[in-house]
Amino acid sequence: MPYFDTASAAPLHPVARQALQAALDEGWADPARLYREGRRARMLLDAARETAAEAVGCRPDELVFTPSGTRAVHAGVTGALAGRRRVGSRLVVSAVEHSSVLHAGEAHEAAGGTVHQVPVGRSGAVDPEVFAAALTPDTALACLQSANHEVGTEQPVAEAAEACRAAGVPLLVDAAQSLGWGPVAGGWSLLAGSAHKWGGPAGVGLLAVRKGVRFAAQGPADERESGRAPGFENIPGIVAAAASLRAVRDEAAAEAVRLRALVDRIRARVPELVPDVEVVGDPVRRLPHLVTFSCLYVDGETVLHELDRAGFSVSSGSSCTSSTLTPSHVLRAMGVLSEGNVRVSLPTGTAEADVDRFLEVLPGVVGSIREQLGVPAVEIRTAAAEESSLVVDALGRRCPIPVIELAKVIGDVPVGGTVTVLADDEAARLDIPAWCEMRGQEYVGERPSPKGGVAYVVRRVV
Amino acid sequence: MPYFDTASAAPLHPVARQALQAALDEGWADPARLYREGRRARMLLDAARETAAEAVGCRPDELVFTPSGTRAVHAGVTGALAGRRRVGSRLVVSAVEHSSVLHAGEAHEAAGGTVHQVPVGRSGAVDPEVFAAALTPDTALACLQSANHEVGTEQPVAEAAEACRAAGVPLLVDAAQSLGWGPVAGGWSLLAGSAHKWGGPAGVGLLAVRKGVRFAAQGPADERESGRAPGFENIPGIVAAAASLRAVRDEAAAEAVRLRALVDRIRARVPELVPDVEVVGDPVRRLPHLVTFSCLYVDGETVLHELDRAGFSVSSGSSCTSSTLTPSHVLRAMGVLSEGNVRVSLPTGTAEADVDRFLEVLPGVVGSIREQLGVPAVEIRTAAAEESSLVVDALGRRCPIPVIELAKVIGDVPVGGTVTVLADDEAARLDIPAWCEMRGQEYVGERPSPKGGVAYVVRRVV
Repeated sequence: MPYFDTASAAPLHPVARQALQAALDEGWADPARLYREGRRARMLLDAARETAAEAVGCRPDELVFTPSGTRAVHAGVTGALAGRRRVGSRLVVSAVEHSSVLHAGEAHEAAGGTVHQVPVGRSGAVDPEVFAAALTPDTALACLQSANHEVGTEQPVAEAAEACRAAGVPLLVDAAQSLGWGPVAGGWSLLAGSAHKWGGPAGVGLLAVRKGVRFAAQGPADERESGRAPGFENIPGIVAAAASLRAVRDEAAAEAVRLRALVDRIRARVPELVPDVEVVGDPVRRLPHLVTFSCLYVDGETVLHELDRAGFSVSSGSSCTSSTLTPSHVLRAMGVLSEGNVRVSLPTGTAEADVDRFLEVLPGVVGSIREQLGVPAVEIRTAAAEESSLVVDALGRRCPIPVIELAKVIGDVPVGGTVTVLADDEAARLDIPAWCEMRGQEYVGERPSPKGGVAYVVRRVV
Repeated sequence: MPYFDTASAAPLHPVARQALQAALDEGWADPARLYREGRRARMLLDAARETAAEAVGCRPDELVFTPSGTRAVHAGVTGALAGRRRVGSRLVVSAVEHSSVLHAGEAHEAAGGTVHQVPVGRSGAVDPEVFAAALTPDTALACLQSANHEVGTEQPVAEAAEACRAAGVPLLVDAAQSLGWGPVAGGWSLLAGSAHKWGGPAGVGLLAVRKGVRFAAQGPADERESGRAPGFENIPGIVAAAASLRAVRDEAAAEAVRLRALVDRIRARVPELVPDVEVVGDPVRRLPHLVTFSCLYVDGETVLHELDRAGFSVSSGSSCTSSTLTPSHVLRAMGVLSEGNVRVSLPTGTAEADVDRFLEVLPGVVGSIREQLGVPAVEIRTAAAEESSLVVDALGRRCPIPVIELAKVIGDVPVGGTVTVLADDEAARLDIPAWCEMRGQEYVGERPSPKGGVAYVVRRVV
């Protein structure tokens, strides 16, 4: 049963399991205690810190272990902002950061700070010059992920770090998605990682803060982990995290080549096998194991369910799969189609045959969903010329229905005429313009609808 | 090699190990995902929550898992204070709470709030009436531990909860030390626990917040764990924590009787075997497995080292074993001797023979340390009457030296005369009055010393 969602959580690496077992026997005691069980625990913790620091590319005394990547990001962002409070209260982030970074930014705004989001292009990457231009004199901290968690696009971290150095602004890199593949290049100031993303156990993150970076840990004080991560250390988990990071790094170069080829196959074949698909993310500057595409006229939740029934575990950034019923902020920032969104992230060791079987199964899954949703086989039909704008009422209908209804009627609109889609589903704001771009139709714009929701106006061009 | 410091961290319970193993295979995926691995993880998490809630005595939807007991306390205190911000900003705590509670209080003070510490008697317990009197109308939250972590004394939680109910103040109970022995009685509002204290793994705490308690989680938002504990859930750890809590509860009644008898033996025999020992904490209303005593004229660090060499792992609240070189705040609040402090906390399953061997070894360990420190064999010698006060300069000397110097000269002081001890070691403030009480001498008081440090004045009575 192929699991293709390692970007959410990787299965436990065998080395992590072995290390965890051993450390359950040797590392359960309090490392702050002076007796033999405490000294053994302290030795294991120190050794794990050295291993992790070597993999990260920092000094052991610059690295602390946290209970998760999210907590590492929260501690890093709040600590760095507080450390530079006198400089200013501006936080610069890319628009496609992980929610942990954006949530830390929201808390900063709620406390009176400001957050500036640097936009990304259609590939999902920031422009280094635009990022550099955002670094005003009152900027306390900048954050840029090493690679995007939803579309795999690598960010220009080294250039951003150079710009930050020039501006005197510390750069925090969320390296959660890439740390298993290699160290982050460039002169970053803070770095966060998450063990369960690289095959380590849940319950372990790491935060590196370079010497010389102003940092003031927030929240109640605690002596453990240099005062940066309160609470009793999870040493068995930490030992397993460090050991597995070293192990996946040993395999990374060869496995990256192999998985990159499998992802290239998916990137090439999916648009050939499935009509009306948009493969998103940078085709070259990307994580080796991750690919994302969106399927027009399909809802994400159903495609996940059908792929799950067929034995494939994938995730989606479509609105219908989120608890807030809004499309992923990453897809939104990229301005790409969000409906029928599928993220495939291959664990190390993924068999070629499993990828091939996925490519066999996918067309039928997408086709049957479209059939059930009544997607017209021929969308663009000859239509009698009409002066007035056609109105499609899709109020109360969820993604992908508004776009399907649009496709059903576009053939009835004379070339040059318009159709207005009334919709209150948040995904329509992203997906109707994306559909227009894919179909060569003109997206005119939106306005409030007197019936509630939003009226989206589309002009038929072809 | 007997490990007698289960109050710091208990060795992993066999049930915890089995459950952890199984959950590493079944519970590594993201429980928020819809595919089978995610659904399996969600089922394990839900089942663990039900088990833990039953043991705590709350509803499953009132309980969240945190990365540690410390984080549970921090989240509970800050969330409850924020939830009642409009009522007031006063936090009431006992003077002997765990450092995690006191540190949360310090952060609250730094943010402009006030903290009122309710004093304890010599047994370490608060007086319920004094606690009740502290609940002013502007009190946002009160905190009381179920039992003290250093001396084992049980607090009158049920009475405190009743007083809180009458005053309309929520009560947070830090149940870290007692949760393995049974649920906390009485109408508490919030409760915190820590798995590695009951034989569960490190990396798991729990926070229960009763329905109806005003609570506003602080820090960056996160969807997981009802928004009260950010970060990817450590499901294998959580499963192991819940399973082991149930397992230790099944054994608790019988094991409590057995360990209580062993602790009674230590409480009775240590003062018989070792001269000048003060056994502290309530002899009856106490945890079954924990006993603490202080040995006059002994330094805590050396006694830990010597016991470790003899094969016994214990901890100490003496100043010399703390990184800040101050005696434990618990011993200070109780007003008992802090020098030569030894805490023995027996893990479940402790063999009677190990306790007997500890009692065999202890007198020799204490005796040899006293001999090395030059403690006078006969302290109280006949002395010529003198009018002027004798001055002992112990400036720059660490615990237990100032008290040893005092004991050396008290025989030279005429009955009714005084001796002044100059000392700058923080422990002297606690230990000189405690020595006076143990010896039947009169502690007159302290004043600043012109030579630096503090001048402690003692009048010879006997």
